[in-house]
Amino acid sequence: MNDLALESPAQFAHAHRLVNLPRLRQVLAAEGVAAIVATSPENVTYASGYWALSQWIRRGPQTYVLLPAEDPENACLVFASSLLDLLADQPVWVTDVRRFGYFRFDRAEGRLDPLSARQVALDDLPVEDDALSALVAAIRARGLASARIAVDELGLMPGQWEALQALLPDAHLVPAMRLFRGIRAVKTPEEIARLRQAAQITERSIAAALDIARPGITEIEMARAFHAQTVAEDGTPVLGCIGFGVRSAMPNVQPSDTPLAEGDIIRFDAGGRYRHYRADIARIATLGQAPERVRRYHHALHRGVDAALEAIRPGVRASRIFEIAVETVRREGIPHYERSHVGHGIGLDGYDLPDLTAASQDVIEEGMVMCVETPYYELGWGGLQVEDTVVVRAHGIETFMTTSGALVEIGT
Amino acid sequence: MNDLALESPAQFAHAHRLVNLPRLRQVLAAEGVAAIVATSPENVTYASGYWALSQWIRRGPQTYVLLPAEDPENACLVFASSLLDLLADQPVWVTDVRRFGYFRFDRAEGRLDPLSARQVALDDLPVEDDALSALVAAIRARGLASARIAVDELGLMPGQWEALQALLPDAHLVPAMRLFRGIRAVKTPEEIARLRQAAQITERSIAAALDIARPGITEIEMARAFHAQTVAEDGTPVLGCIGFGVRSAMPNVQPSDTPLAEGDIIRFDAGGRYRHYRADIARIATLGQAPERVRRYHHALHRGVDAALEAIRPGVRASRIFEIAVETVRREGIPHYERSHVGHGIGLDGYDLPDLTAASQDVIEEGMVMCVETPYYELGWGGLQVEDTVVVRAHGIETFMTTSGALVEIGT
Repeated sequence: MNDLALESPAQFAHAHRLVNLPRLRQVLAAEGVAAIVATSPENVTYASGYWALSQWIRRGPQTYVLLPAEDPENACLVFASSLLDLLADQPVWVTDVRRFGYFRFDRAEGRLDPLSARQVALDDLPVEDDALSALVAAIRARGLASARIAVDELGLMPGQWEALQALLPDAHLVPAMRLFRGIRAVKTPEEIARLRQAAQITERSIAAALDIARPGITEIEMARAFHAQTVAEDGTPVLGCIGFGVRSAMPNVQPSDTPLAEGDIIRFDAGGRYRHYRADIARIATLGQAPERVRRYHHALHRGVDAALEAIRPGVRASRIFEIAVETVRREGIPHYERSHVGHGIGLDGYDLPDLTAASQDVIEEGMVMCVETPYYELGWGGLQVEDTVVVRAHGIETFMTTSGALVEIGT
Repeated sequence: MNDLALESPAQFAHAHRLVNLPRLRQVLAAEGVAAIVATSPENVTYASGYWALSQWIRRGPQTYVLLPAEDPENACLVFASSLLDLLADQPVWVTDVRRFGYFRFDRAEGRLDPLSARQVALDDLPVEDDALSALVAAIRARGLASARIAVDELGLMPGQWEALQALLPDAHLVPAMRLFRGIRAVKTPEEIARLRQAAQITERSIAAALDIARPGITEIEMARAFHAQTVAEDGTPVLGCIGFGVRSAMPNVQPSDTPLAEGDIIRFDAGGRYRHYRADIARIATLGQAPERVRRYHHALHRGVDAALEAIRPGVRASRIFEIAVETVRREGIPHYERSHVGHGIGLDGYDLPDLTAASQDVIEEGMVMCVETPYYELGWGGLQVEDTVVVRAHGIETFMTTSGALVEIGT
């Protein structure tokens, strides 16, 4: 094992770690696996705090985190030499690290600053030929070569699962994607803090976009104002569905040069990332007074979200939340309302557990962070949507929202 | 087949199509495959013009494009019902489309606008249970159920390759990822136009960031100015490595609250997306006069890029470009210079072909778009880098750059 002289940053990272270790132990014990391996960008960052740039912006580059079930603090991170700089600079709580692959660093003479010294220490580590060899070495070092191991199938390239099995012929590999989703469903305090900030950046971005609403402005111009605010608050744009008029009925509307007209619906379903955590918020405005049907329908949708939020508490079935939201919308003004889901968890991925669907087997737990939404898309007329993000506490929800989901009638 | 009333948008899309159909025919004929199937976000957008939001922002959602080798214009697009709005609104040149999955749309009464009518037409199509069933139906409809078919392995979820083979027991499936990379290596005029714009947005974003350079400003503040310009020009931030002083030696540096000091190197290795196409540009500045070694080393690196660019023309081996760049840098001022590569193609992916490495088997072709770069990372001192993006024409390169890679000494 390679315990680096990273104590102080690692201690900081441990206090701010993303991974829910008690839940991880519990899930792995229930599944009867001796270890779990993260391979996808979300699960690697979650398991270690390490954000390995190249795997986040394209498919192919490999990074792994091995966590033994009985002692997940004895984790191992497998990283590419070309990304050692980020390992030296980020709040990573895993201190046993193994690297693979060639990358050329030159070194200055004389005494180095701490950041450069950490990079040099990482650059002095032995180098494995490839990612899988380094992972196998870490598994063998922990005596797990014949164990039942859950491996995140999502980040592996085609053929790598089979290659790993061939390198560990006595191991019993099982898929880990579902287990990671189950673990990630209940957030740690650091995750909740980031998700709150991501959500509120999105609210302020919607406000910044609405600030420039006037007749003739285009969806693209409003999207620019939206993303400009996100970037100004150190968020990264991801989702920016902004549609006017009949275009508001497009669930995934991408901004066009369509101009805003008096009476138009403006629908936002949008949110970026903040420190790798996603946001997903929906709000509706109209330019000037809203037509009567817009008001009536929006009221029903808003009541649906509020009724769902009032019902959310630990122990309630997710399917019950779905029923409450849909029934409320129907009763309050859209009798024909139909939906596949009324929300979902959110975290490093935009769709974490729970799933708020009719058939969901999920049960609400304290610490879940979720988006609750009641979209309505009527082709040829328009789309309306309220979507809030909240965290589940012991006796109900704590909202991340600083704005209500009420209809905004601009200039009235 | 479902030929929709999309003629006019489809004709526009055809004229602006991304996929290089002559090269696709040639590659498929050389490989002896009867068809190719795109599954990854890059290859789906490339093959059809369709940008399927959900597969671009997370892993899992499926979209496919089937292109027969002998008649690739007889392509079929397999899409999720939840994303039919984008299909109705985007310049997609594939007119035979098949959908899968449930999504609820309501419909207004009376005559519809053309966009809403296109969505209703798509919503009236028969619905397959899942993506693979729809793909299999498209393959069978073209009489290809017993053919040799190249399937892009990158976008499939674990187990889907095996499931597809089980549904088509007489087909011979071979991996397509490598073939798509080969096809995508030579760009169409529409791709070149987007890549030029992406590169120039990045240059202007670097200029906007340098405009606010002064003692005490942080990397994060400069990154905000960088991304703000990208967003103002309708780009999407992706890569934003901006490092000061010793942090400039970090290849993947993520902006921190480190303040800028007199004499510091400022290294940019950055670029967003414009209409889905990537940029990747590097430039160096110093706050005030550059130290002598910075000037000398930067001159050598810049000469390395220029020598490589002068040597690039159709028919030259990529490995020869690598040798010329490295030898030039060594001769011009960094005798110990070592690199794994001096550049790469760029397109929908940040790393297209060709690879400019010592061992590369690639040969330069007219229409390739590539980033040529000579980075130097010295831990404890700093990092320097020049990276330009160019397109290969019949007799040499046409640069996309409007700025030179010369060292910028701010305030001198």
